[in-house]
This record gives sequence, C-alpha cells and structure tokens, in this order.
Amino acid sequence: MSSTPAITLKNDLFLKALQGQEVPRPPVWMMRQAGRYLPDYMKLRAKYDFFERVQTPDLVAEITVMPVHQVGVDAAILFSDILVMLQAFGVEVQMVPGKGPYIPKTVSTLEQAKQFTLPDVEDALHYVMGGIRATQQALDGAVPLIGFAGAPWTLLCYWVEGKGSKAFDGARAFCFSQPEAAHHLLGLLTEATIAYLNAQIAAGVQAVQVFDSWAGLLAPQDFYTFAFPYLKRIAEGVKGAPVILFARGAEYALGELAAQTPAAALGLDWTADPARARAAVGDGVTLQGNFDPAKLLAPIPYIQQQAREMLKAFGKRRYIANLGHGILPNVHPDHARAFVETIQAS
Amino acid sequence: MSSTPAITLKNDLFLKALQGQEVPRPPVWMMRQAGRYLPDYMKLRAKYDFFERVQTPDLVAEITVMPVHQVGVDAAILFSDILVMLQAFGVEVQMVPGKGPYIPKTVSTLEQAKQFTLPDVEDALHYVMGGIRATQQALDGAVPLIGFAGAPWTLLCYWVEGKGSKAFDGARAFCFSQPEAAHHLLGLLTEATIAYLNAQIAAGVQAVQVFDSWAGLLAPQDFYTFAFPYLKRIAEGVKGAPVILFARGAEYALGELAAQTPAAALGLDWTADPARARAAVGDGVTLQGNFDPAKLLAPIPYIQQQAREMLKAFGKRRYIANLGHGILPNVHPDHARAFVETIQAS
Repeated sequence: MSSTPAITLKNDLFLKALQGQEVPRPPVWMMRQAGRYLPDYMKLRAKYDFFERVQTPDLVAEITVMPVHQVGVDAAILFSDILVMLQAFGVEVQMVPGKGPYIPKTVSTLEQAKQFTLPDVEDALHYVMGGIRATQQALDGAVPLIGFAGAPWTLLCYWVEGKGSKAFDGARAFCFSQPEAAHHLLGLLTEATIAYLNAQIAAGVQAVQVFDSWAGLLAPQDFYTFAFPYLKRIAEGVKGAPVILFARGAEYALGELAAQTPAAALGLDWTADPARARAAVGDGVTLQGNFDPAKLLAPIPYIQQQAREMLKAFGKRRYIANLGHGILPNVHPDHARAFVETIQAS
Repeated sequence: MSSTPAITLKNDLFLKALQGQEVPRPPVWMMRQAGRYLPDYMKLRAKYDFFERVQTPDLVAEITVMPVHQVGVDAAILFSDILVMLQAFGVEVQMVPGKGPYIPKTVSTLEQAKQFTLPDVEDALHYVMGGIRATQQALDGAVPLIGFAGAPWTLLCYWVEGKGSKAFDGARAFCFSQPEAAHHLLGLLTEATIAYLNAQIAAGVQAVQVFDSWAGLLAPQDFYTFAFPYLKRIAEGVKGAPVILFARGAEYALGELAAQTPAAALGLDWTADPARARAAVGDGVTLQGNFDPAKLLAPIPYIQQQAREMLKAFGKRRYIANLGHGILPNVHPDHARAFVETIQAS
C-alpha cells in the first residue's frame, strides 16, 4: 500500500477539528453537498448517467470540487455511492431515475449468502481511486478530501431488499430469521470495506466517513448485534486517516461508539440533541452535524438564526458543522451558502 | 355529552394496566391488529373499498372484532384511519390501493390555512361513533375497545405533503417557513381532536390512543414547538377515559410526556430501550410496546424467546405488551398468535 501523498492544505480546519486541535471557528461541510441542488451538477446529470458519473475520474473530480468553489465548504467529499461496494461483490445494481437503486438479484438464503467471498475491492473499484487522484489534482490543496463507504448493516439492507424502503422490514427479518447468513455477509462487507477505505486513503483522501444510514431502524439490542461490532471493526481496521462514524438514528449508541471504537468523530442526525450527545461521548471525540436539512428550505434569516443556535449548542471545540442528513434537491444554492457562511462568520 | 355506557368486561386486564392496578400478567394487543395479515380482512378488502369499510358501522364492527376472536388479543382497537380528521375539515382524502393516502389539495400558505375553521367533528364523523356502538354490541364485553386519533403534527404532515413520505421534509419546511400557518392548523386539529376523542368516549370506547407517528422526524426543539404542546392539550382535554400517547421516534421526550401530561400510558416504538424508558418516566405511567414488528416474520421459537426477553425487560407492572409499530401485512396469523400467547402464558 502506498502512503498518502503529501498535500499542503490551504484550509485544514476540518482535519484540525477531527484531531481535536484548536480552531478559530468550526469547519463546515454538508452531506450530499455535490448534489442535485447545484444547477451545474444537474447539467452533468442530464449528460451522463449515474454510473458514468461515478466511474469517470474526471467527472468525479469536477462534481466533487463543485461545492468547494460554489458554496465554499471547508471539506470536499468524494462523489460516489455506497452501493458500489455491492458491485464489487458482483451484485448488479441499477440506478432507476426518480426511483433510486434497484438490485434485481437479492439475497435471501444462507446458501445464496455463502456463495459470496471477499472480492479484490481495489481492483473492482479502481475507478474510485482514480477519481480520488483526479479530485486531489483539481482541489490543489484547497480543502481536505473525505472518502466514504456504507456501513455493513446499511449495505445489507439494500442487498436483501433490493431497493429503498421506509423501514427495511425485510432486511431486519432476514437478520432475525437467518442470523448465520446475515453475519456471513456483514463480515464480508466489513473486510471489504476496510480494504476499500484503506485504498481510498492510499489514493489520497485525508479522512473517511462510514454511513450507517439505517442504523436507527434496529432496536438497540439488534444494533449491538448486527451493526455496532462491524462499525467497530472498520474503525479499528482503517489506518492512516481519521474515521467518522455516522450511525444515523442511533443516538443512544453515541457513548459506546465513543468509548469502544477509535473513531475520531461521530456524526449526528438532526434528531439528536447536541448537549445530550456531548454529555454521552465526553471530550475525546469530535461531533459532526446536525442541522435539519429541511431548515434550508426556510427563509435565509431563519437559517442564519438557527445555524447560530446550533453553534451555541455544540460549542466550538471538537465540532464540525454539517447537516443532520443529506442536503435536499430543492434547496436553493443561496440558502446552502447562507448556512455555510453563517458558520464561517462565527 | 352522554356518559360512557356501562359495560361489564370479561377481560379488563388492559384497563387495569392503564390505571396502574395489579394484574396477574400484562395485557397484549397489536397496532394494526385488524389488518392485512388476516385472510378474513383481505376478503372484506376485496369486496369494499377503504372508505366504505371505514364508514360502514357493521363492517367496522366486524373488522375490529376479528383479531379478538382470531388472535386472542386483550383489547380491540377501532378499525378506522387517522386521516378521517382531515375529511372532517372538508379536505378530500383518497386512498390509492398499493400507494396509500393521496390529498389532491394540500395547504402551503397562511392564506390557505386561515380559510379553515373548526368543524363539527361529531357530525362530520358520525359514522365513527356508529362504528363504536356497533363494535361494542359485537364485542359483548369480551375486551375493552380503544378509540384513536392522529396527533396534530402527524396529520399536518399529510395535509402539507398530500401523501406518504420518507421524512416529510416539506411538512417540516412548512413549519419553519410558515410557523403562523402551521400553528393555526395545529391548533384547529387539536381542538377538533379533543372533541373527536370525547365523542368516541361518549359512544363507548374505554381508552383512546393518539398516534404521533411522525414525531421522530422533528429535531427535539421542533418537537417541543410543533408537537408536544398539542399532545399535552389533547391529553388534558380528553375526559372520561385513559389516554395513551404514542410519540413514535421521540424516546427523548418520554420523561416530559410523563411529567407534564396526564397521559395514563406512553407508547414506545421498537427502537426505544425498555429500561431506559422506565427510568425516564418513573413509576406513575404505564408503558406500551415495543416488539419489532419484523420479528413476527422470524420463526416462532425466535418470536417466543424474544417476547419473553421483552417481558423481562419491561417487568409486569404498568406495562401493556404491544408491537413497536403496526403489524406487517406479510406476517402469518400463527406468528401473531405465537406472540400474543407467549405474553399471555407469562
């Protein structure tokens, strides 16, 4: 594995906040910041289909850098998708416009599960590493670049159900009915994700985030059975860059995530309470979040006032401002900028 | 208002548990227990459309009583829908098979909101009261009958968005952008709901449950602005029967709901932790919940073992066993019975 290329950053607030260093003000970025609310992204979306965008390093770079230039965020996050990991396992993933992901051949039995083995992720997802190298060239040290992956439980949700779902009842039922099959796949996804994130780091990302978007659909004892151990192993297996764990909807687990994993930061969704979260995790970990994305649809003065309230609630130490979930497609870029600028003026 | 007809109950475990009296074992019922997992319900569904079923007292009675006879639950809950309240306001609600509710004319401005005034709920929803009387005749005192209504915030979600949604971003944005319009409608819904639940009690239900199904989509401070005060007013305004408040996804608010409202019981969704919930509410309120509905899709021995674990976690005092959300349509009735019988054998 090659080591991270040395990059001199013009703005390293994000990495400093991750490491717990003093910063003059909290850094800010937004989940899904390279997304549909940006008119220039929509132009590329009209020209190239989803996987063309994801698999073409120059497009990845152009899209990833877009919000840095147009909205002024303090970190870039690689344009990609968590479901590329299933593709690395040889699973067909379609992206149906207006509907979301669709996986024609889902997994439902132990026999099917056992047919899968650990893929060569670096080879299968070589285009992601190409995208990282192209993005770092395009960024030219402006801000750090964040890599990411889906958490095993969240990936399993799609693998079992084959599409988006309100509560992924079928994926939960699969875990309860076929725990051996579930743990086999979760274990494989974990090993593959560790290799994937380490390859991203070798290619040049300066931090990684693990998205457990559906963590909150599990009862606590099931989260500790089917999600937490795998998040922990990933945080322990990733080397050379700080790890952000985002277990959406599992606020109750923040204390355990802080105490039992080496994560540098924990993401909070918008339903988490800043003061309660800080009390749960102590002072040794950075918190990231958690502006309600729907607030960016409200008038700008309200956004500014609410962003200041959020800053007050989190304080400036070990804190990275973000949304509590991905930015909505119908947000006006001026509103996104108002959010970012309010944080930066603090 | 007429007083509740005197009904001698053969099984009053549910009411005793609500009142905090000693019971030999916890009572059990299931949200959506009169639903699509029952083959006999599916037969009626094929013959009568949704609002025909909801508006015909004899069908309401037949459907409501079905799980009492076929699954053996300790309480019946009236077959109806939370969205009838919007119909009482003159709002057109369609039920699109396979898709769910659809409201062609949504509300988005203060001007539109201000056009609505308090309806005569008892008159508009007279068929619900007719359904209650027919059901009580059919039940013949076997078990208590629960009435219900949607909480104002949850009803507003549909009123603003016009259909189901993953996170009701538009409804949240409406509250943030048009707080005056939101509070006007929430206030009206609150007054109408109090009148509605009191009319249900006068017609014969022995307890009522308020479903705030989308409470968990609000950040805590927004829950305390747009949901909590209205839940509190409803709990205070309902007279003559115990009130169960189910603020799904707002586990953090259990302590406040227990301390600041006269609710007899609080519902828990399946992501809440029994011990933590009890610690938050103290001993003065009954807890109701919270089996993960997806667990009913697993093999029966697993259901039995998990149901016993749940009982152990909640204890037998001030506890009503239930699911943490509605029963899923693809659950086999034998699995539902296994759950109910495990509780009843405790």
